[in-house]
Amino acid sequence: MSNLLVFQSDFGISDGAVSAMYGVAKSVSTTLDLYDLTHDIPPYHIWEASYRLAQTTSYWPEQTVFVSVVDPGVGSERLSVVVKTKANHYIVTPDNGTLTHLAQSVRISEARIIDEKINRLAESFQSYTFHGRDVYAYTGARLAAGKTSFEQIGPQLDVDQLVRFTTPEVTVNNRVITGTIDILDIRFGNLWTNIDKNYFYQEAIEYGDILEVTILDDTQQVYKNMMAFGRSFADTQVGEPILYINSLGKIAIALNQGSFADAYHINAGTQSKIRIHKTTKTSDPFTK
Amino acid sequence: MSNLLVFQSDFGISDGAVSAMYGVAKSVSTTLDLYDLTHDIPPYHIWEASYRLAQTTSYWPEQTVFVSVVDPGVGSERLSVVVKTKANHYIVTPDNGTLTHLAQSVRISEARIIDEKINRLAESFQSYTFHGRDVYAYTGARLAAGKTSFEQIGPQLDVDQLVRFTTPEVTVNNRVITGTIDILDIRFGNLWTNIDKNYFYQEAIEYGDILEVTILDDTQQVYKNMMAFGRSFADTQVGEPILYINSLGKIAIALNQGSFADAYHINAGTQSKIRIHKTTKTSDPFTK
Amino acid sequence: MSNLLVFQSDFGISDGAVSAMYGVAKSVSTTLDLYDLTHDIPPYHIWEASYRLAQTTSYWPEQTVFVSVVDPGVGSERLSVVVKTKANHYIVTPDNGTLTHLAQSVRISEARIIDEKINRLAESFQSYTFHGRDVYAYTGARLAAGKTSFEQIGPQLDVDQLVRFTTPEVTVNNRVITGTIDILDIRFGNLWTNIDKNYFYQEAIEYGDILEVTILDDTQQVYKNMMAFGRSFADTQVGEPILYINSLGKIAIALNQGSFADAYHINAGTQSKIRIHKTTKTSDPFTK
Repeated sequence: MSNLLVFQSDFGISDGAVSAMYGVAKSVSTTLDLYDLTHDIPPYHIWEASYRLAQTTSYWPEQTVFVSVVDPGVGSERLSVVVKTKANHYIVTPDNGTLTHLAQSVRISEARIIDEKINRLAESFQSYTFHGRDVYAYTGARLAAGKTSFEQIGPQLDVDQLVRFTTPEVTVNNRVITGTIDILDIRFGNLWTNIDKNYFYQEAIEYGDILEVTILDDTQQVYKNMMAFGRSFADTQVGEPILYINSLGKIAIALNQGSFADAYHINAGTQSKIRIHKTTKTSDPFTK
Repeated sequence: MSNLLVFQSDFGISDGAVSAMYGVAKSVSTTLDLYDLTHDIPPYHIWEASYRLAQTTSYWPEQTVFVSVVDPGVGSERLSVVVKTKANHYIVTPDNGTLTHLAQSVRISEARIIDEKINRLAESFQSYTFHGRDVYAYTGARLAAGKTSFEQIGPQLDVDQLVRFTTPEVTVNNRVITGTIDILDIRFGNLWTNIDKNYFYQEAIEYGDILEVTILDDTQQVYKNMMAFGRSFADTQVGEPILYINSLGKIAIALNQGSFADAYHINAGTQSKIRIHKTTKTSDPFTK
Repeated sequence: MSNLLVFQSDFGISDGAVSAMYGVAKSVSTTLDLYDLTHDIPPYHIWEASYRLAQTTSYWPEQTVFVSVVDPGVGSERLSVVVKTKANHYIVTPDNGTLTHLAQSVRISEARIIDEKINRLAESFQSYTFHGRDVYAYTGARLAAGKTSFEQIGPQLDVDQLVRFTTPEVTVNNRVITGTIDILDIRFGNLWTNIDKNYFYQEAIEYGDILEVTILDDTQQVYKNMMAFGRSFADTQVGEPILYINSLGKIAIALNQGSFADAYHINAGTQSKIRIHKTTKTSDPFTK
C-alpha cells in the first residue's frame, strides 16, 4: 500500500479530536504519512464531505487511503464501510451518502462493510461517540500500512446498495442551460455549479460571449444579469462578474476580487438554481 | 527516540509563528515527523492547553515528544521544563500549570528544567518573546531526534514542585452527583463534565434512565430539565438533549445535531457547575 | 534537494484546494515532506504573503522549496517564477510583488521564469484559474524532489526585474524615530513596526526607558501615550502597553494579555505611521 492516509471531518482543528485520530494512526504504524483534506466541513454536512472527496482524491497517488468522518448517525444502525474506487483510491467512511459524488465521477468498484469485531481500537472502552478515532482512523491506518488487506475489512457489500443522495440533473431547453449551485468556493465566494463545461461546448458558447445568468432560491429570483464567459478573472475588470470554467471543469461564477456569494446572499444547495442563456454578443449587456 | 514531534500553542495558524517552529525543528533534523495537536488554544488559556494534552497524548506512540506553548509569562521567572509521563511521553512546556491534567491522569514520572545555556537556538539574538521557537521547538526537536538525552536537558525538578491548578472535585450527596463543565466539545457545542463514568455505575444509572440535570453559573441556575442517558446521539431525537459517556470516559451533554452550549449560553470553567440526579423512569420528564 | 516543500496561499483550509495541491506534490514524489506556512493570507493580500515569507524561510533548512500562491492576476500576463535566495531557499510564486521583503532581507540571487510548456501538470485540462495546483505545486514538487533542476525551470530573469512594492523607509529627525506598522501579530493583536532594533541602539534607548508613542492613520492621530521599553510582556503589568523587540528583531507594541490593535482600532499598512520619542525616565508618564 501507499502509506498515505488523508483525513476529512467536521471536527474542526480547535480541540484534540484530529490529533487523537493522528495518534491512533501513528500507533498503528509510524511509517504512515498523514495529511488532511479538510476538517472544516460544516457540522453534519454530508453533502459537502461527499463533494470535497470528489474534488480532491483524483490528485493523490493510487492506493491513497482517505478517512472521511461526517457522522451524524454515529451509534445508529448506519454501516461503516471501506470502498475502492475505479481510480484505485480507498475511502473509509460511515455509509451515509458521503460517497455520492465519487460514485458518479470516478465510480466505486468494490465495497466492504467494516467488521468492528476485528477493526476497532483495542481498549476503546465504552465510548459510542467517536468512531472517527476508534474505528475509521484505526481501520484506515491498518489498510494504508498494509496491516490488513481490503478483503479482510469485512463482508462485501453490493456497490449499488451504498447510500446515495439524489443529485440534481442539468437540463437544456430552448438553449437555456439549467443547473444548480453545487457548492461555494468558500474563501473567494465564487459559485460552483453542477454544469459541466461540455454543455457550453454543445451550445457553441465561446470565450468572450455575453450570457444572461438568472439565479433562483427555489422559485424566487435572486439575481439576473448579463456577464461575459472568460478564461479567468483577468478577463474582466475588478468588481465585475464573470462566468468561467473552474478547476474541476464545471461552470462557475465569480466577482473579480469580490465575493459573489456575499454580494447577492447566495447559498449553495439543491434549492439554489441557475439558468444560463446565450444571447448575441452585440446586445447591450444591461438590457434585460 | 520516536522522531515524532507534536505541537500545541495559542498562536493560531494565520501567521508565520508555527511555520518558524517547524523550520527550527526540521533544521535540527530532517528525519523528524512533525504534527499538530492544535494551535487554536484561546490566547493565554493554560487550563485548556492542559486539558487538550490529557485528551490526546495517550493515543500517540510511546516516546512521542509534545511541545506545548501557551506562555503568558514569557520573559518572567517561570521555569521551562521537560517532563516524562508514566506512559512514556515527553512534554516540553513552560511550567505554568500546563501539566495539571496529565499529572492527574497518566501522572508525571520525572521532570527536568531546561538549561537554556545549552538548549537554545543559536543566533536567536535579542528576542525575549518567542521561546516557542527559540527554546521549546528547538529542545523538543533535539529530544525527539535523539540529539540530546532527557538527562542532558538540565537539572532535575521534583515532580511535586511543578505548577498545578486546583481542579474541582466531583461529589455525591443524597444520590446527587455534582461536578463542573470542564471544557466544551467546541465544534458541536457539547458540554464535557469532570464526572467520570464510574460515578454513574456506582449510582446504578443505566442506559435509558431519565435524569434531572441542573446547570449553574456559580450560584445562578441557567438550566434545569430531564433528559435520558444514552449510548450516543442516535438514542434520542434530533434537537433533544442527551447525557452520554464521551470519548474520554466522562459524562457529557449534547443537543442532538444542535449546540447545547449555544442554546443555553453555557461556558466551561470552574464556576460552571452541574448536578445530575437519577429520578424514576416512570416520572413525567417535564415535572420539576 | 531537500525533499522539503512548504506551501503558502490565500485559499484557506475549509475546502479541497490545499489538499489538491498536496496530492499533486505527492503524485510527483511520495518521498516529499509537505508542510504549510499558512493558508490564511487575506484574499489577494500580496503584501502579507511577502512579509510571511521573509518572517519564516530563514528558519528552514537550506534547499527547502516554498510555494506561495496569492495570485489575483491568475490568467493575466503576470509571470510565474522560481527564485533562489542568497540563503539557498527556493520560492515558486507568481511574480506580483510576493518577493518584496525577501529581496530586501536575505536577497534574491537568481530568478527563472517558469516555462509552462514543460512545467505544468499533465491533463490539467482547460482550467485557467488554479495555477496553484497545475503549475506552482507541480513545479515546486519537481524541484524539491530533484526531478527538475533550477536551470531547467525556464529562462533566466534579471533579479532587478522582479515586481516589487515600495516599502516605507524609517526616518530619524530630532531624535524622533518614524516608521510604519508593517503587520499585526494577528492572534495577540500586537503591532509589528518596520523599525529595526538598531535604531533604538543608535538612539541609546535602554530597557526600562519611558518612550512617547504616537500612532497616525495617515495624518490623523489615533493614539498617543507613554510606555516603557521592556524585554518582554512580563516587564509590565497585565493590561499595560509595552514596547519590545519582536521575534524578527523589529520594534513592536503590545498590551500585556490584551490586544493593542483591537483596543485602539489600529490596522497595519503603509498609511499606519508610528513615531517614537525618548523622553527622560523621570518624566511623569501621563504628562503630554
